[in-house]
Amino acid sequence: MTDPGGTLEALGARAAELDATAPLGDARDRFVLPEGVVYLDGNSLGALPVGVAEAVADVVHRQWGTDLISSWNDNGWWDAPERVGDKIGALIGAAPGQVVVTDSTSVNLFKAYLAAASLRPGRRLVVTDPDSFPTDLYLLRSAADLAGLEVVLASPPDVPGVLEARGADVALVALSSVDYRTGERWDLPTIAGLTHQVGALVLWDLSHAAGAMEVDLDAHHVDLAVGCGYKYLCGGPGAPAYLYVAARHQEAFTQPLAGWHGHARPFASEATYQPAPGITRARVGTPPLLSMLALEAALKAFDGIDVADVRASSLSLTSFFLEALDAVVPGADVITPRRPERRGSQVSIRLDGAYGAVQALTARGVVGDFREPDVLRLGFAPLYVTHADCLAGAVALAAVLAAGEHTDPAYATRSTVT
Amino acid sequence: MTDPGGTLEALGARAAELDATAPLGDARDRFVLPEGVVYLDGNSLGALPVGVAEAVADVVHRQWGTDLISSWNDNGWWDAPERVGDKIGALIGAAPGQVVVTDSTSVNLFKAYLAAASLRPGRRLVVTDPDSFPTDLYLLRSAADLAGLEVVLASPPDVPGVLEARGADVALVALSSVDYRTGERWDLPTIAGLTHQVGALVLWDLSHAAGAMEVDLDAHHVDLAVGCGYKYLCGGPGAPAYLYVAARHQEAFTQPLAGWHGHARPFASEATYQPAPGITRARVGTPPLLSMLALEAALKAFDGIDVADVRASSLSLTSFFLEALDAVVPGADVITPRRPERRGSQVSIRLDGAYGAVQALTARGVVGDFREPDVLRLGFAPLYVTHADCLAGAVALAAVLAAGEHTDPAYATRSTVT
Repeated sequence: MTDPGGTLEALGARAAELDATAPLGDARDRFVLPEGVVYLDGNSLGALPVGVAEAVADVVHRQWGTDLISSWNDNGWWDAPERVGDKIGALIGAAPGQVVVTDSTSVNLFKAYLAAASLRPGRRLVVTDPDSFPTDLYLLRSAADLAGLEVVLASPPDVPGVLEARGADVALVALSSVDYRTGERWDLPTIAGLTHQVGALVLWDLSHAAGAMEVDLDAHHVDLAVGCGYKYLCGGPGAPAYLYVAARHQEAFTQPLAGWHGHARPFASEATYQPAPGITRARVGTPPLLSMLALEAALKAFDGIDVADVRASSLSLTSFFLEALDAVVPGADVITPRRPERRGSQVSIRLDGAYGAVQALTARGVVGDFREPDVLRLGFAPLYVTHADCLAGAVALAAVLAAGEHTDPAYATRSTVT
Repeated sequence: MTDPGGTLEALGARAAELDATAPLGDARDRFVLPEGVVYLDGNSLGALPVGVAEAVADVVHRQWGTDLISSWNDNGWWDAPERVGDKIGALIGAAPGQVVVTDSTSVNLFKAYLAAASLRPGRRLVVTDPDSFPTDLYLLRSAADLAGLEVVLASPPDVPGVLEARGADVALVALSSVDYRTGERWDLPTIAGLTHQVGALVLWDLSHAAGAMEVDLDAHHVDLAVGCGYKYLCGGPGAPAYLYVAARHQEAFTQPLAGWHGHARPFASEATYQPAPGITRARVGTPPLLSMLALEAALKAFDGIDVADVRASSLSLTSFFLEALDAVVPGADVITPRRPERRGSQVSIRLDGAYGAVQALTARGVVGDFREPDVLRLGFAPLYVTHADCLAGAVALAAVLAAGEHTDPAYATRSTVT
């Protein structure tokens, strides 16, 4: 790429300066990243933290292979869901005893929807965003059908109007902190306040927020929250998800997946289910311990790091990427809000040929992803993405577009899974 | 232990001979077993197969760490649930395309109960064994409450009577192949035939059968089955579970956990759920891939092994253990049936002080487990337990009882988890 006016040179110098003074310092050294790759897809699958491989090897060799069944007690397997939950809790503003790592986000959504309905008997509306991640919508429909609820679709800005008109019938407002496609960050605390005023509960899906920004569940009196372990939390592919139930709701929290791991006395072999005290009642069956303990090891990447610095780093990265993008791809159709407070940790660009652009970028060593129908999505995981990566990503995109690579059939032909 | 009459010497010679001529040959070499341990708890947590550690290390280092998001396509992550499902299918008599590895056994039970109810609308009874593993009962109650079903408790021998009296109202008969506590193996094929005669469905819980004996789901026209991955299948702690849906039911199979991984077009971001064709519709959220792929690697321990030989080995082990037990602990209260065809792959002994006996045995290097209220449970995983192990287990138990170790407070005091 030529550099008329020295724009790239100036941006490169800025990137170097920003990286040298980044608030997270050398956090990137806590990750194993492949050589020659600019990884801007940590909002889909977080990178591998240093130490996870060794921790997993220990789980397999020593804990499973040698200690065998005794590991349930002696290596802390039984308590892992609550123990790892508390570690995630520290990143999302939840005091201990309110977060448990269990199942997938989808399954936890199902529990949370039905639990909310039973916490607010007589109210039959659940309000959610029609642009929620699909699984959030699908499970809500499942839960609504089983519990006789009505789903009201409203974008976050329209939720206050729904609450004003029908608030007395609303059991739950279920929203995501950050839109998975556009990267828009919603002002959920304000909506939570309005929701509580009408006596309803809020459920937050933190999948695209946890590990990238402050969430402050307790401070905002959030009732229920879910999130996945494999995006910014870097817990590995399909890492188990988590469920937050505010302490004040736990005694009344009932969920339909009454499994033995959530029983008050799991080894008493009682014929009747009695939920365990506290967040443990949200557990169901035996958790996948290799994945669970990989997540636990991964969370050490956050040790000693202030979430406020994570957010500052995130905003610095996305701001700088937008600046670079404006310089090298003027007029790019950025659908992520430019106002920092309304931005998650990703930048999404609407583009004819977005699918091909993702493939062409990958060939150039820049990994992002595609979302229907025409969105190029680039994630800036604050702990390991650099400003230099941001610039490299923007420059690579400019080169792809200039060369028309995104419409080249070699890149534009769809594979089955993306 | 003294050896009046040379009983032990003779048993030792028999054990050596049986091990030398065992139908599974050197299958034990396919496992990593700790030195000096007689492991008779593979019915709770299977031993570590050779090669699993290397496979998991590859998943972590190369697939996650280096290939990152591309692994969903390039390393076969997306198709793993069906691919590993087919491998389990081969061990339980299921033709390809009917088994998927997903979630926990508990969650799969919930899906299966509700799916059965919707496959048999208008019928509101579900028959199950009151001595089922507790989670089977708990989830059935959850599902029954949501779907307006009535649970009828009947031991397997009493099920035919229930079918005769109320068959037209029965939607489902849900039973376990092997009682987790007593080790009794039920004649489920006969019950399935009677159940089908009244137009109802059967659900089998294979947790204590798969990998230890023939199951032959297709041959017996079983409708639904579930099982865990971490007992005889040796998939590792909390390995994901599996769900079998007979091909003939798949098109009508609907389940309440309508997650995006079960969608016909998971990446189309459609607002409405449309189930995928085939068994894929039983998937829910993102699977825990470290645990999933450890299970896949573990199943290689069964490569080239005929399940009939596994069953023959299992019966040889439990028969020989009973013979040794009779010799060294005459009058032991064995609650597992002595008739081979009614026996699973474990032997359970009722014993005052069973809890202490398990701890004292562990101190002697023999690992079994305890089940409420007074059951010592010893599992004989056919692939890696030897006849020498059987004899060692019986002799150790005799020594524990002779010395009264099982009532020693050092062993008899309960810890929280067993």
